[in-house]
Amino acid sequence: MAIYQQKDMKFKVGCFLRYQVNAPTTMVFSFRALGTGSQRLTREGLSVSPNLANELLTPVFGQTCFDRFLLTESGELTLRYSTQVETRPQVLPLAELRELSAGAFDATILPFLFPSRYCQSDLLARLAWQNFGKFTDPFEQVCAVTRWIHDHIEYQSSRTTNMTSAYDTVAQLSGGCHDLAHVGIAFCRALNLPARYLSAYAYQLPLPDFHACFEVYLEGCWLVFDPTYLAPLNGLVKIGTGRDAADVALGTSFGRSTLLEAKVSCVLEENAFSPISSETMEMAVCLDGGN
Amino acid sequence: MAIYQQKDMKFKVGCFLRYQVNAPTTMVFSFRALGTGSQRLTREGLSVSPNLANELLTPVFGQTCFDRFLLTESGELTLRYSTQVETRPQVLPLAELRELSAGAFDATILPFLFPSRYCQSDLLARLAWQNFGKFTDPFEQVCAVTRWIHDHIEYQSSRTTNMTSAYDTVAQLSGGCHDLAHVGIAFCRALNLPARYLSAYAYQLPLPDFHACFEVYLEGCWLVFDPTYLAPLNGLVKIGTGRDAADVALGTSFGRSTLLEAKVSCVLEENAFSPISSETMEMAVCLDGGN
Amino acid sequence: MAIYQQKDMKFKVGCFLRYQVNAPTTMVFSFRALGTGSQRLTREGLSVSPNLANELLTPVFGQTCFDRFLLTESGELTLRYSTQVETRPQVLPLAELRELSAGAFDATILPFLFPSRYCQSDLLARLAWQNFGKFTDPFEQVCAVTRWIHDHIEYQSSRTTNMTSAYDTVAQLSGGCHDLAHVGIAFCRALNLPARYLSAYAYQLPLPDFHACFEVYLEGCWLVFDPTYLAPLNGLVKIGTGRDAADVALGTSFGRSTLLEAKVSCVLEENAFSPISSETMEMAVCLDGGN
Amino acid sequence: MAIYQQKDMKFKVGCFLRYQVNAPTTMVFSFRALGTGSQRLTREGLSVSPNLANELLTPVFGQTCFDRFLLTESGELTLRYSTQVETRPQVLPLAELRELSAGAFDATILPFLFPSRYCQSDLLARLAWQNFGKFTDPFEQVCAVTRWIHDHIEYQSSRTTNMTSAYDTVAQLSGGCHDLAHVGIAFCRALNLPARYLSAYAYQLPLPDFHACFEVYLEGCWLVFDPTYLAPLNGLVKIGTGRDAADVALGTSFGRSTLLEAKVSCVLEENAFSPISSETMEMAVCLDGGN
Repeated sequence: MAIYQQKDMKFKVGCFLRYQVNAPTTMVFSFRALGTGSQRLTREGLSVSPNLANELLTPVFGQTCFDRFLLTESGELTLRYSTQVETRPQVLPLAELRELSAGAFDATILPFLFPSRYCQSDLLARLAWQNFGKFTDPFEQVCAVTRWIHDHIEYQSSRTTNMTSAYDTVAQLSGGCHDLAHVGIAFCRALNLPARYLSAYAYQLPLPDFHACFEVYLEGCWLVFDPTYLAPLNGLVKIGTGRDAADVALGTSFGRSTLLEAKVSCVLEENAFSPISSETMEMAVCLDGGN
Repeated sequence: MAIYQQKDMKFKVGCFLRYQVNAPTTMVFSFRALGTGSQRLTREGLSVSPNLANELLTPVFGQTCFDRFLLTESGELTLRYSTQVETRPQVLPLAELRELSAGAFDATILPFLFPSRYCQSDLLARLAWQNFGKFTDPFEQVCAVTRWIHDHIEYQSSRTTNMTSAYDTVAQLSGGCHDLAHVGIAFCRALNLPARYLSAYAYQLPLPDFHACFEVYLEGCWLVFDPTYLAPLNGLVKIGTGRDAADVALGTSFGRSTLLEAKVSCVLEENAFSPISSETMEMAVCLDGGN
Repeated sequence: MAIYQQKDMKFKVGCFLRYQVNAPTTMVFSFRALGTGSQRLTREGLSVSPNLANELLTPVFGQTCFDRFLLTESGELTLRYSTQVETRPQVLPLAELRELSAGAFDATILPFLFPSRYCQSDLLARLAWQNFGKFTDPFEQVCAVTRWIHDHIEYQSSRTTNMTSAYDTVAQLSGGCHDLAHVGIAFCRALNLPARYLSAYAYQLPLPDFHACFEVYLEGCWLVFDPTYLAPLNGLVKIGTGRDAADVALGTSFGRSTLLEAKVSCVLEENAFSPISSETMEMAVCLDGGN
Repeated sequence: MAIYQQKDMKFKVGCFLRYQVNAPTTMVFSFRALGTGSQRLTREGLSVSPNLANELLTPVFGQTCFDRFLLTESGELTLRYSTQVETRPQVLPLAELRELSAGAFDATILPFLFPSRYCQSDLLARLAWQNFGKFTDPFEQVCAVTRWIHDHIEYQSSRTTNMTSAYDTVAQLSGGCHDLAHVGIAFCRALNLPARYLSAYAYQLPLPDFHACFEVYLEGCWLVFDPTYLAPLNGLVKIGTGRDAADVALGTSFGRSTLLEAKVSCVLEENAFSPISSETMEMAVCLDGGN
């Protein structure tokens, strides 16, 4: 498969998070841009108030980077993070994409075929096959899944809760970017295509926020699909990937905390930008340098 | 921490499975005993009818071994598996257990703190803290979780479906061994203790079947807990571990199939057997040789 | 609206039920054919073993008849019921049906617009409007709902549990007659059409059993629809109606009991039978004499 | 049973509601104080903008009063309602309450024993019997249910959605007044005690809002219980009762609408007020004049 590398682009991404914390609690965060072969970080900085030691858990399997804090006193916790990221997404032209097949993979990929917290692929198998069973080409099948989600599920950023799963979303037909991604993942897994959740900063997202898409494993690459059509695929800066949002939640709290405020930014620092549309899918994008 | 190794025991385990398959479908099975430092397999054999090539996916992270089949024709599929296993569980005496702490761990352990398909630790956090927040010693806390499950949830092997999760089981208060394990995992994760699902052959299980327990990561060991109290902890022969039953399902079908018949056996071949009770927890058991 | 009455037909219906009961428990049963203006009962008989007093709760709002038993001793409970029923369903020819409108109704009808235990019309509103919003004629709209259910949801009599609701069935796409009825009710209510559950004996049902359909209130009549297409509409003998299966459950147990065996029969005793198909809907059927 | 009538009290209650409506839609509202034998209304007034005809559906079975609007144009809908209410709650002193029994009732009461949209008494039966099975006196049993809810479920007014049911609340252990009421209803039904949902204006509620409690049918009276302990039982002004919140929702929308603003008031106009605590339950209160 011929893969073309885009020229490097340089983004500045960052976030400001403010939590109310009921101590004692442990909190685990996933907000850092991920340093990979195709994402090089410079000038990464994190400031935390009150002044706490963070334990940085570096990704063993390349999934995401976690910051862990032990909070012994109740009160507000603020986190201010920023980094520069040079990205080099790989692009696959349309002609190549028609030839992809799911192909063989080893045991590290297999868990991405199994149901997870928010992606009950087992329960949605009939719906997946009824709607998408007629496609024989895997790439076209995933494009059809992506279009169906966009056309049938109303994008609403603020209506769902941390209980809402793909199972709910196919019945209720509205959700945020994470809900749409969960449906895509669940359908693909039901169709025998390994799929995972992508948490990312996104350039040109209409309302700056963390973004979520899904990736499907086709011929050895994790290709990214975005059923929201809200941001260019080559403007994504990867935070991490996982089986679903539970694996790369912005913040996981073992105890009680409330997110009071979140500001997110993603700015192009250098180089012209030729957006690759998540709607037309004339080109596919792989955010990994082989990872 | 002082760990004592039991003398080797030798079991013969096996299963006979009969499925009705609607082709085309891919099926992924997890029924093999896992070869690890503390489980040595000999005379392992699998016969399949009709005569199909199985693809063996060996465990990359030591979790479980999968057999994958591509079925192109509808009909019955039968699998007959058997192996001899020498096991050498590690035993931790009571005196040691009182000193355990959750301690530090790396990023490979972290996913076992996150919610998964059947273990919604996020949704059950209040229930976990309300019932078990008063315990400061992690081992005692897990023992209390195990006892609570045994005392409050009626063991019924055949009432639940593949929709039933820990969230359901704490409301409905009945379930099979997998349901009880899911509740244990969800509670432990909510309490900040890494927990995972164990699929196993079990010696002296009253009705021969596949068995499920849960493991908790305490001071660098995965210790096994069984809220069913049905089988000795040192008679377990590990098939695999995962985030919950979805990761080590006996059979995952991408398409349609029905399990028509399952026979399971676990026989002691050599050596005397001094059962370690899952009820009294006077000794804790680790099935891994450090894995 | 011109309504035609079919000639009387005479059926013999009955059932034999065997339960295992853990005393003390109260059980409430709904298995009697309902005596209404268009259903006249003769030779009704019930024998119970052990010999217990039943309290007969006669329908105040014409919904169903309940037999209540207080069981003070554990053991088996058997019920043998039979009756002759003269039915006189009202038939509406196609020409009339095109003119129906939902129209006005009083407060007794309103609850049949609200969500109920198994019919979450609130949660399924988008799905209902997305699929059926384009129909302006209410009768055509309900016919479209009925066809959609038949075409998309696989009829399987034995896979679902008492947890399964319309919300589950639209995601899982398989279910028994009660599940299909629940989906029809939920969609109709979401579309602003009062709908209720019908529990019935059914003549010519391929496998003799209790049957379930749904009724929609159109121009002052409750018209019956059967998305299973399994039995003629004019061969239905009404047991009762309710907001969903919870209101007319065969048996509701306040304590523990298990249904061990159920045999159901519905035989034509007199008169020729010209089946009115639930599939073609060339004629609509109202089982009430105005009730 | 000796029942004492309190002296009349006079309240002024009212609400201001503002909705965004996507036409065409039908909306059904339940916000009027209910005129009954023990609640006499005077100076009732409703003003609606834009100027629309409301259809008033008067309660056939004494449950609640509905206003129905057909909205043909999108935009804002505001409703301003107020009325004076003379209430005369009946009070049962403690000595009497110890003698109550569930007793006999007719078929109109039976539906309040069945599971409903938000009160899955069928699924929560084990939990109910495990916690409250030891009580033989029905009034004490309901008091124990009420206390348990107060002690175990954290009152939080704004966290739950219209998906949240009693089944969720017993697992998640937090909710608003409607969620706590749903749990009370579900437990009581499981325990064989007819129970229903009460929607009300509440005097001395700390934050003025609509309030919800539950009622249990004991010896021919519907007695009110409030697990939030937030308002005196004799300061409740009944809006309506139903099987759960679905039956007496403030607003049910057949189409799309969003509640933008709600202001609620309940003021004592005349007479001194001796609060009857919902916490101590030294006296029980029946809001009906026999209804």
